[in-house]
Amino acid sequence: MKLKELAEQLGLSQTTVSRALNGYPEVNSATRERVSQAALKFGYSANANARRLAIGRIGAIGILMPNDRSERFGPHTSEFFSGLAERLSQDEMDLLMSPVINNDEISAYRRLISSKRVDAIIVTGPTLMDERVAMLTEAKFPFVLHGRTNIEAPHAWLDIDNAGAFRQAASHLLDLGHRHIAMIDGLKGHTFSEHRELGYREALLERGVPIDPRFIVHERFSDETGFREAQRLLSYAPHPTAILAGSMMTALGVFRAIRSKGYQLGKEVSIIAHDDVFPYLNASNMVPSMTTTRSSIRSAGTRIAEMLVRILDGEPVENLHEVWPVELILRQSSGPPVIPG
Amino acid sequence: MKLKELAEQLGLSQTTVSRALNGYPEVNSATRERVSQAALKFGYSANANARRLAIGRIGAIGILMPNDRSERFGPHTSEFFSGLAERLSQDEMDLLMSPVINNDEISAYRRLISSKRVDAIIVTGPTLMDERVAMLTEAKFPFVLHGRTNIEAPHAWLDIDNAGAFRQAASHLLDLGHRHIAMIDGLKGHTFSEHRELGYREALLERGVPIDPRFIVHERFSDETGFREAQRLLSYAPHPTAILAGSMMTALGVFRAIRSKGYQLGKEVSIIAHDDVFPYLNASNMVPSMTTTRSSIRSAGTRIAEMLVRILDGEPVENLHEVWPVELILRQSSGPPVIPG
Repeated sequence: MKLKELAEQLGLSQTTVSRALNGYPEVNSATRERVSQAALKFGYSANANARRLAIGRIGAIGILMPNDRSERFGPHTSEFFSGLAERLSQDEMDLLMSPVINNDEISAYRRLISSKRVDAIIVTGPTLMDERVAMLTEAKFPFVLHGRTNIEAPHAWLDIDNAGAFRQAASHLLDLGHRHIAMIDGLKGHTFSEHRELGYREALLERGVPIDPRFIVHERFSDETGFREAQRLLSYAPHPTAILAGSMMTALGVFRAIRSKGYQLGKEVSIIAHDDVFPYLNASNMVPSMTTTRSSIRSAGTRIAEMLVRILDGEPVENLHEVWPVELILRQSSGPPVIPG
Repeated sequence: MKLKELAEQLGLSQTTVSRALNGYPEVNSATRERVSQAALKFGYSANANARRLAIGRIGAIGILMPNDRSERFGPHTSEFFSGLAERLSQDEMDLLMSPVINNDEISAYRRLISSKRVDAIIVTGPTLMDERVAMLTEAKFPFVLHGRTNIEAPHAWLDIDNAGAFRQAASHLLDLGHRHIAMIDGLKGHTFSEHRELGYREALLERGVPIDPRFIVHERFSDETGFREAQRLLSYAPHPTAILAGSMMTALGVFRAIRSKGYQLGKEVSIIAHDDVFPYLNASNMVPSMTTTRSSIRSAGTRIAEMLVRILDGEPVENLHEVWPVELILRQSSGPPVIPG
C-alpha cells in the first residue's frame, strides 16, 4: 500500500499521514494513534528508513560530481538530475554526489563503493572504451550507464540513438539538396559524439557526397564555441549551407554567426540542433523556430533511476539495455539551399 | 584491516600506501592503482573516512532536491552545484541530495537531520518569512542559507544585493531618459524577487516617476515566459522603452519579443538582464551584447561550502553573513530611448 492510498482510506491528507507516522507534534495524539493502527492493518510500512533496514538497503544512489575534465555541470546535467529526482523521490531515496580528486574517477568510484553510503551508482559520459565500466563490473557493484561503451562487460545501460539522430538529420538535409553540410558536436572520445559523427558520415557516404574533414567539429557545448566555429565554417568557400549543432546552446551561437554574416536562417544557411528538451528554452519558440533531433534527457534520468531500483530488486542487468529512438522535428530553421541572388 | 596490515600485504611503507590512497602525485600511477585495488580487495576504507571518524564527522553536506513547487532544477542550480562541488571536493566531502515528498520541505529537512547522513545543510530559495530557517535554527542543526529571510533567528547566510542590482539598473535607465520601465522577474514571495522589486520601486520613487503595476511581472524564469510577457508589455500604449529581465533565459525571450515587434534592441527598446554567469551563454557575445547586472552564482556556491566548513570547525554563525555587491556591466542592449521615426 502506498501513502496516497493509506491517506485516502483515512480521509486525511498525505502530509498529515506522513507527519503522524513520523511522530511530529503538529499532529495530535488521537490522529497519530488512528493513523498508525490503519498503517498496521493495511500493512503500510511508514518509515522509509525502517523499510530499508528491513531489506538491507542504504536508500541512496551515488553519482560523481562533474569536474572540469569531464563535461561540466550544464543545462543537460540539471535536467538529467531533475529526472532522477522524480523517480528517486517516490522511494524516498537520496542521491549522493561524490567529488573527484585529481581527475581520478576510478579512485572516486572505489571510495564511493567502500564508503558504504550508496546502494548503486550512475555512470555518465562514457567513452568508447570506458575503464570505469570495466572496474565497476569487476567490483560487482550495481550500476547503470547513461550512454554506451564498447567495453565487453555485462552491465545495464540506457542510451539514445545518437547515430540515428545525426544520420536522419543529415539525410533530410541531403534530400533537400544540400551538399555542403557541417556538424559541430561535443568532444571527441565520448561515445555520443563518436556515434553522431558516425551517423553523419553514413548519411553522406550513402549518397556519395564527399566528406570534408574541416566540416566536422568537436568542441565543448556553449553558445561561444557554436558562434566561433560557425563563423569559421562560414568563412570557407564553398561554405556549408547547413550545420548540425550538437546542443541547444551551441545552436544559439550558430544562429548568431549565421545572422552576423548576413545570411538568412533556414534559407541561405539551415540548422538542425539536438535538443535535450529544456523547460526554459523552447526550440519551437525560437525565431525562426528550430528544427531539432529531440530526446528528453529528463525522461532518461527518470528511467535510469527506475532501472537502478529494478537491479536492486534482483533484475539481471542483461535485461536492462535500452536504446531510445530520436525524433526529427521539422521547423523553420531548415529548408532547401538557396543561393543568394 | 589497518593501514599497517595493508602496507605489509603490499610490501610498501605506510607512508607510500597512505599517499597512494590520497592520490598524491609523488606516488606513480601504477602503484596508486595497485594500492587502491588491494584496498578494495581487503576492504580497507581509505583515509578520508578514517579521518572523519576521528573528528566525529560524516563528511557530507545535505541539500533538498528541487521539486516542482520551488524553483526547478535550472541553469542557475547547476552552476551553484558546480561551485559547491569545487570547495567540497577539497575536503573530499559528499553532497547528499534528498527528495521532498508531497512538497513538504519541513519534513524533508527533519528526515535529513534524523538520518544522520549529513553534517550540515544548505537551504536555498528563501522566502521573506521562511519557516524552514526557524525550524533548523530551533533544531540547532548547522546550516547556511543561500539568500536572506526576515525570520529572526541566528543563522549563517550569503546573499547578493538584489535590491541594489535592480535599483542601479533602473536608475541608469532613468538617467538615460527612460520613463516607462518594466521588470520581468522571478516568482513573488521569494526574497530575491521581492528585493529586486523593492530596488526597482526605490529608483522610480526617487525620481518621482509613477509606478505602473502592469509593468511589474513575476513569473518563472524561462525563454517562453520572457517572450510572452514582453509581448504583452509591448502591446500597451505607451509601452515600456526598457525592460529589466531577472534571468538570462528570460532575457532571450524578451530579445525575441522586441525583435518580433520590429523594434530595434538597445535603441527603441532597451534591456538589462541579471546574469548569474553561465559558462555556456555569454552576455557579451549576444547580438546586441547584453547589459547585465552580474554576480557569479558559481562563486556563491563555493563560498557557501566554505562557510559550512567554518561552521563545522566551530565558527559562530553570527560571524557568517555576507552580502555581495552586484556589478552593472554596460553593453549595447541599453541606450537612451529613441522614438521610432
